[in-house]
Amino acid sequence: MVTIGCHGLVWTGAFDEAGLAAAAERNRRAGFDLLEIPLLDPYAFDVAAARRVLAGGSLEVAASLGLPEHADISTAEPDKVRAGEELLIKALEVLSDLDSQHLCGVLYGMLKKYPEPAIAAGRASSLEVLGRVADRADALGITLSLEVVNRYESNLFNTVAGALAFLDELGDPRINLHVDTYHMNIEESDLFSPVLSAGDRLGYVHIGESHRGYLGSGTVDFDAFFRALDLIGYDGPIIFESFSTAVVDETLSRSLAVWRNLWNDSDDLGAHACTFIRNKIRAKETIRLH
Amino acid sequence: MVTIGCHGLVWTGAFDEAGLAAAAERNRRAGFDLLEIPLLDPYAFDVAAARRVLAGGSLEVAASLGLPEHADISTAEPDKVRAGEELLIKALEVLSDLDSQHLCGVLYGMLKKYPEPAIAAGRASSLEVLGRVADRADALGITLSLEVVNRYESNLFNTVAGALAFLDELGDPRINLHVDTYHMNIEESDLFSPVLSAGDRLGYVHIGESHRGYLGSGTVDFDAFFRALDLIGYDGPIIFESFSTAVVDETLSRSLAVWRNLWNDSDDLGAHACTFIRNKIRAKETIRLH
Amino acid sequence: MVTIGCHGLVWTGAFDEAGLAAAAERNRRAGFDLLEIPLLDPYAFDVAAARRVLAGGSLEVAASLGLPEHADISTAEPDKVRAGEELLIKALEVLSDLDSQHLCGVLYGMLKKYPEPAIAAGRASSLEVLGRVADRADALGITLSLEVVNRYESNLFNTVAGALAFLDELGDPRINLHVDTYHMNIEESDLFSPVLSAGDRLGYVHIGESHRGYLGSGTVDFDAFFRALDLIGYDGPIIFESFSTAVVDETLSRSLAVWRNLWNDSDDLGAHACTFIRNKIRAKETIRLH
Amino acid sequence: MVTIGCHGLVWTGAFDEAGLAAAAERNRRAGFDLLEIPLLDPYAFDVAAARRVLAGGSLEVAASLGLPEHADISTAEPDKVRAGEELLIKALEVLSDLDSQHLCGVLYGMLKKYPEPAIAAGRASSLEVLGRVADRADALGITLSLEVVNRYESNLFNTVAGALAFLDELGDPRINLHVDTYHMNIEESDLFSPVLSAGDRLGYVHIGESHRGYLGSGTVDFDAFFRALDLIGYDGPIIFESFSTAVVDETLSRSLAVWRNLWNDSDDLGAHACTFIRNKIRAKETIRLH
Repeated sequence: MVTIGCHGLVWTGAFDEAGLAAAAERNRRAGFDLLEIPLLDPYAFDVAAARRVLAGGSLEVAASLGLPEHADISTAEPDKVRAGEELLIKALEVLSDLDSQHLCGVLYGMLKKYPEPAIAAGRASSLEVLGRVADRADALGITLSLEVVNRYESNLFNTVAGALAFLDELGDPRINLHVDTYHMNIEESDLFSPVLSAGDRLGYVHIGESHRGYLGSGTVDFDAFFRALDLIGYDGPIIFESFSTAVVDETLSRSLAVWRNLWNDSDDLGAHACTFIRNKIRAKETIRLH
Repeated sequence: MVTIGCHGLVWTGAFDEAGLAAAAERNRRAGFDLLEIPLLDPYAFDVAAARRVLAGGSLEVAASLGLPEHADISTAEPDKVRAGEELLIKALEVLSDLDSQHLCGVLYGMLKKYPEPAIAAGRASSLEVLGRVADRADALGITLSLEVVNRYESNLFNTVAGALAFLDELGDPRINLHVDTYHMNIEESDLFSPVLSAGDRLGYVHIGESHRGYLGSGTVDFDAFFRALDLIGYDGPIIFESFSTAVVDETLSRSLAVWRNLWNDSDDLGAHACTFIRNKIRAKETIRLH
Repeated sequence: MVTIGCHGLVWTGAFDEAGLAAAAERNRRAGFDLLEIPLLDPYAFDVAAARRVLAGGSLEVAASLGLPEHADISTAEPDKVRAGEELLIKALEVLSDLDSQHLCGVLYGMLKKYPEPAIAAGRASSLEVLGRVADRADALGITLSLEVVNRYESNLFNTVAGALAFLDELGDPRINLHVDTYHMNIEESDLFSPVLSAGDRLGYVHIGESHRGYLGSGTVDFDAFFRALDLIGYDGPIIFESFSTAVVDETLSRSLAVWRNLWNDSDDLGAHACTFIRNKIRAKETIRLH
Repeated sequence: MVTIGCHGLVWTGAFDEAGLAAAAERNRRAGFDLLEIPLLDPYAFDVAAARRVLAGGSLEVAASLGLPEHADISTAEPDKVRAGEELLIKALEVLSDLDSQHLCGVLYGMLKKYPEPAIAAGRASSLEVLGRVADRADALGITLSLEVVNRYESNLFNTVAGALAFLDELGDPRINLHVDTYHMNIEESDLFSPVLSAGDRLGYVHIGESHRGYLGSGTVDFDAFFRALDLIGYDGPIIFESFSTAVVDETLSRSLAVWRNLWNDSDDLGAHACTFIRNKIRAKETIRLH
């Protein structure tokens, strides 16, 4: 049974206790099973508050992040690399305290428009750190999934093929891929063949429209994507992600270049997305009858 | 506010009182506003029973038909043409008794795989009859919409462009077009430009998947279609249509070449389709915010 | 290296010596490597003339057919079944005389809109005959490929899944599948997954647009289809097929319900199609660089 | 008759005399009618050399640019705004010397990933400058077309709707829109409705794949786009644009985040793109026959 979730920034720009409580409640009401929390700064995250909000509920939690400038493990600067490793370990500890099983996103570098191509030394240090972080994740029962993002958010790799090549260098089968339809629409040849290539290495899925607004109001070929998920028997989390100037996290919104107001009503947006995803999954299941 | 409906053959193969009652109830439960009844033989239709079933409810009714062999008004045989005109008038009277405002389908000829191309005399007699039937429809407050069907179901026209040329010969603005995404997928250049061409001549819409199964499990480009409906401001009925060997009307199922079992559970199919249609409409509405 | 070909009815409605000579010449000029000949009546086909036309040239030949009423091997009528087997064997002999390696099409039954569902006895006799015909084909070095056609052209099967189930009953790995994008667009869930399912059982490919006109002027998702061909490493023939009232074979055109004039200029149509196919193949090849 | 062209960076990273000569020759050989030159620094462009290369040939020329940091007219800094206006006027003079009629691209601001949303004062100064630049362009017989780019390349507007609203503030009908399928795929609801909205305000078209590689190897819905061009009767330039690490302009390649090698052979790429575009245009023209 697939778990359907939603990114917290659909509901709130503040992840303090009040923000989390509102997000959790609205997330449930929209029909989702899981809440994804942006954990850009795990040191500042109020774990106790999050435990109070989420305790006893049936809502699952996952977290995503992109590394900040001072903690970019894909550089050749030892201070940054060390800070990045510590930040990732801290994020794992936060997730463990929340009984969460999923850490995803741009775990391998900074989420930004890089000014130049990736360098070999940065790639090597990223892999080295990830190997050690995977050990810790393993011990805590958490799955790491590296998000494949577009050219404006990483220079290390931008496709499933590139990510698989990156992971092959490490040779650690515990690290999975995290794909996002928004990024796939920009970088991949189509929406089905990367899913087939990823196969059982696929650990996490973001469902975003081409402009990150309402599902079905953009150009993403969701039909091909959900058909491929069904073909590989994917049973991990499927998370809706959307950004508008209606709900803002100053750091993340600017990193992501969110200049437009694609929606005003989070509740309508979220319920619509949840229905959209479940409807697609059901449609693809019925193909087995054909 | 658009009216969302469903073809009766999703629910039952028999349109007697029991069949109609079950269809009406299941149609409502699946979330639809309107029930479309196949009125292939209006003489055999039990109007009194239908009134008992539908009275006092909020469910709207429409009817569709294709003319039978002995009543094909697109022939040069006066007996058939006369029988066809009478059948169409009879259908209008049934609909009037049911307070229905919509008669649609292959009103201009027989629904079959013709063995040869259309003939000019048949085309002329079809138009002549339709002009008179439109007078009667007008008097009863019923809108006629001619369905554009694929090459295996009519030889008179198979595209919106062809249908508009046909209607232009008649010059009667009261007769509308009825488009069906199943047929459009076979005959049109794409799913949006015929809608734009039809514009305010579009009176009725069938939503069918490419193989007539679950919406979203086939090849129809519904996104382009619903985007175009929004662009022209269409506000008429939008009706789901699906056929499987699970529910059979012997005459219609064989005419339509229904050999496959694409679904077993009408309730799941119908609820899924209703959600699919409303979800698409909402997604396209939000584009105005962009 | 893939072989790109074209159906003879793009060029001529008559397959006598003059028709064949013109077709072969125009086929070459448009850039095709292979000419597909409709062999509906192999007894009437002038093999000597065809050999004169094709001798010494570099043009390959293939043939397709659908069985006629009196030779429908998918019936329970022994006379028809026997006539069908003889016709298929005769077709193989014609092809052998032409040094052709491919017989494809509706080899398993009549190509028509059947008035009722298939019957078990007809299915069984079709399989039995095909097994014996495959022996003869094998001896002559000819590959049989069964075309998967839409519901209006066969009631035995209409999808790759159905065809594979049909062939599984026979258990003869020498018989391949022949898919046609025109039919797939109507019957399949999408244009890529049936190709993946067929895999190395795929022996022959027809490229037809949704309305059978110019490639790229209809609704077929050719990108998904050619992507899938590349993924499975398909290296058999790829044949363009198109029908218009501009070129007519009385029997075939009526069987196929060709009522519309989608093109006038065969040479422009064919050259366009040849370019279209080669351009798609090249585009998909480059994905390996990504 | 539509003019089909190609961006110079397909052929060369250096636009000195040797680079221009090679680009012009290869552009012609690939079948293009027009060469688009990146004119990021019009002061450094060697007009005399360009005239020598292009004189007497039948190749048309156009230029595109994005303003540099020190000349960003969408800021509130008078020095930058003044420098931007001068740069645009200089670019017009260069084009006039080359008998070119088209200046396009991000003429209204800097091409970069902005760190924060646009500001009102910057928007106002951009419009004010563009009004004056349009006067000069008009005098020189050059059309200005503002390119609609994605969120990572501008914060002023990212859609045709946004660009039309921007131009409406100016009310100068001489300034046109320049759309690019690469950007549309990210920001628009679909590939046809923005073209219909732009209508006769559409002055320039870039054809780029979703990842900027070979046409037909990505996710852009070119069929909808070319259908819409045909519907509005577009007859301006249609220019192929592609970027790979195989050919690099240090400034532009890094601004555009070109990290991947999507092709190695410019000649094959360009000839393929030219064929692709002409093939699509022809396919859409034939729809008028339907």
